[in-house]
This record gives sequence, structure tokens and C-alpha cells, in this order.
Amino acid sequence: MEQSPIDKLINDISKLPGLGRRSAQRIALFLLKNKDKNLSSLIESLKTSYNNIVECIECGNIDMQVPCNICSDSSRDNSKICVVEDVSDLWTIEKIGFYKGMYYVLGGSLSAIQGVGTDDLKLQNLLNKVEMHQTKEVIHALSTTMEGQTTSFVIADKLEKIEEISVTRLAQGIPIGGELHYLDENTLNTAFQSRKKIT
Amino acid sequence: MEQSPIDKLINDISKLPGLGRRSAQRIALFLLKNKDKNLSSLIESLKTSYNNIVECIECGNIDMQVPCNICSDSSRDNSKICVVEDVSDLWTIEKIGFYKGMYYVLGGSLSAIQGVGTDDLKLQNLLNKVEMHQTKEVIHALSTTMEGQTTSFVIADKLEKIEEISVTRLAQGIPIGGELHYLDENTLNTAFQSRKKIT
Repeated sequence: MEQSPIDKLINDISKLPGLGRRSAQRIALFLLKNKDKNLSSLIESLKTSYNNIVECIECGNIDMQVPCNICSDSSRDNSKICVVEDVSDLWTIEKIGFYKGMYYVLGGSLSAIQGVGTDDLKLQNLLNKVEMHQTKEVIHALSTTMEGQTTSFVIADKLEKIEEISVTRLAQGIPIGGELHYLDENTLNTAFQSRKKIT
Repeated sequence: MEQSPIDKLINDISKLPGLGRRSAQRIALFLLKNKDKNLSSLIESLKTSYNNIVECIECGNIDMQVPCNICSDSSRDNSKICVVEDVSDLWTIEKIGFYKGMYYVLGGSLSAIQGVGTDDLKLQNLLNKVEMHQTKEVIHALSTTMEGQTTSFVIADKLEKIEEISVTRLAQGIPIGGELHYLDENTLNTAFQSRKKIT
């Protein structure tokens, strides 16, 4: 049986990340209830995005220009590359504003279960970028999950062949404002192993 | 400062019901990451909906035809009209499938706070429909909230002038599968007042 346009719409909306069928139905009804206002303005907005927003071929960021405004900003320190899994991670770091180096967005992390291999993460691009810009430091800002750590390990392994490069990762430990008795075993263990001298 | 297309996209998505800024950003990135697959197929789907889906002028349902497939189904009992607040309520009742009468979608309920008055709910349309089809029963399937009950009262009041019409509402009481100690005072009180003889 062919799907009706209403079912298809709900179905397509429910494929968006974080949405289930119920929330998709709610959104579909909201759009259809006032078609000329809600639906047509959303279509316009998506079309504008489709036409104007592009992925930076240098770093994988999403912007209105290629190279993106970070890659083309000559005031930034291009001796440092911060490797992140996703554009949202890049945005999070940029919002805080303390980091003034370059980025490289992997677009995910290695995952045997999800079938993401080294080729999917455009690692060769990263190596080319590192060699081209004679990068001094590659900072791994990856998730502290199994997948993130595996990815970090693989990247570090590949970078080892390049001379005079320092590969770092973000500190692991107790989050600021975190209460000790809520911490999981792994974090507490890591925090103990990496303890620092106060005086 | 003018908003960038990316910010505008996130902003527009976050206006959809049930979505906050964080989920909107996640959806925006999902769409932009694979523009030619995800974004353009969503645009197509929304356009098809815009062109094909219409609101039924008879009952307020949303469908591909006017009158909708319920209003134009001659096998249905048009001596009964079930009044609901929203299209989603109509869908919920239709999915169960036991009710074979007609519907009337108010598009909300009376609310002094949200400024929804009798004119906004197209009550006159309902009265016209009742008179035209010589309806025998108007079933109120409205929320048991203050707003829903006020709406129900106002509709019942207007229908009173029409002769030989029975106005009913769905039974109120303990939901099936509900545990007594989880019930609120009002439900329990209502359930007591409306108790039925078993033998």
C-alpha cells in the first residue's frame, strides 16, 4: 500500500535525530495547521540553508564559505590543530572562545559496531593538512568513550611517523562542580592516576 | 547584526513544538552534514505536503481531499458528531476504529490565558453542521482540563437551543490499568461519584 503524504511527512520528520513518531506527528500537525505561515517559512529556510551552507574542505566545519571563516582567519595560530568528532564539538569550543588554533572535524569516531573505519574519518586529509602546514601540535578533543579513545589511539599512531610534532589530549578527571560520590569508578581512577602536585 | 543562515536555520527549527535549541542544533547538523541526501529529501517531502495536504472545510481534519475521507464516506453514521480539540485526537480515535460517526475539530479549547475565545474555535460552523445534518448526538471528546471542560460547557449551552439533540461526553474515572494509589484526588472523587452497579 502506498503511503499517504501525511504518513510520509510524519515518517520523514521522525527520521530526524532525537525525534520519535509522537513528536514527529506533533510537528507535522503544527506545520500543516497553518501551512502558509509555518510550513512555507520552514521550506524557505531549509532552501536557503541548502543553497548557502557548505562544508569546509579544509577542516570539515560548516559555514557559508570555503575555506570556512576559521580556516581563512589569518590571525589564528595555524601551528595547532584541534581534532574533534563533530561540528557541534567545534562550535562548543568556539563558543567558549579561549582556543585560537585551527580545527579538524573527523565526522565521527571509529566504531566496529557501526562499521566506521579509518577511511570514513578522512584521516589521510588530516595527515596531509598536518604536513602541509608544518603543524607543531595536534590536540585530541575526542570523547572519552571506547570509540573516541580508539580513534585517538589510531590518529596518534599515524602521526608518530611525522617528526617534531606533539600530540596531546584534553585532561581527564573530575569535572568542575562535580561531586565525588557521584563519579563513576573509571573517572575516579583516572583522576587518581593523573593527580597533580598542589604545592 | 544580521543572523547567519546557520543560526537562522537552528532558530527556525527550534520554533517547532517540543524542540529546544540543543535538539534544533543537532537536527540542523544532521541535515547539513549530508545535504544532498537528508536536507534535500526533507525539502521535497515538505513541498509535497504543502501542495497536497489540505484542511477539510467540513470538519477541520487534515487530508488530501476536501471534504476529507471521513466526511465523504457515506457508510459512516452522520447522525453523530464527535467534537475533538485537535486533529491528533481525531487520529487517536480513528486508530482504535470503534467509532463510525463524524467528527468536528475545534482546533483548540477556550482559554482566557491564551486569548482563545468562542470565535477562534469556529463554533458557529459546528452549529450549522449540526442543523444541516439533523445530528442526533454530539459527543464531547475533550480534555478533562479546566479549558476543555469550559469549552464543553459553552458548546453544550449553544446546542441546548436545538431540539431533539443529545449531548454526551466521554466517561470520566479510573483509567484502565491504573493503580488506585497513583490517582489524583479529582479523578478518584469523580470515579466515586459516577460509580456503577456491578450486579
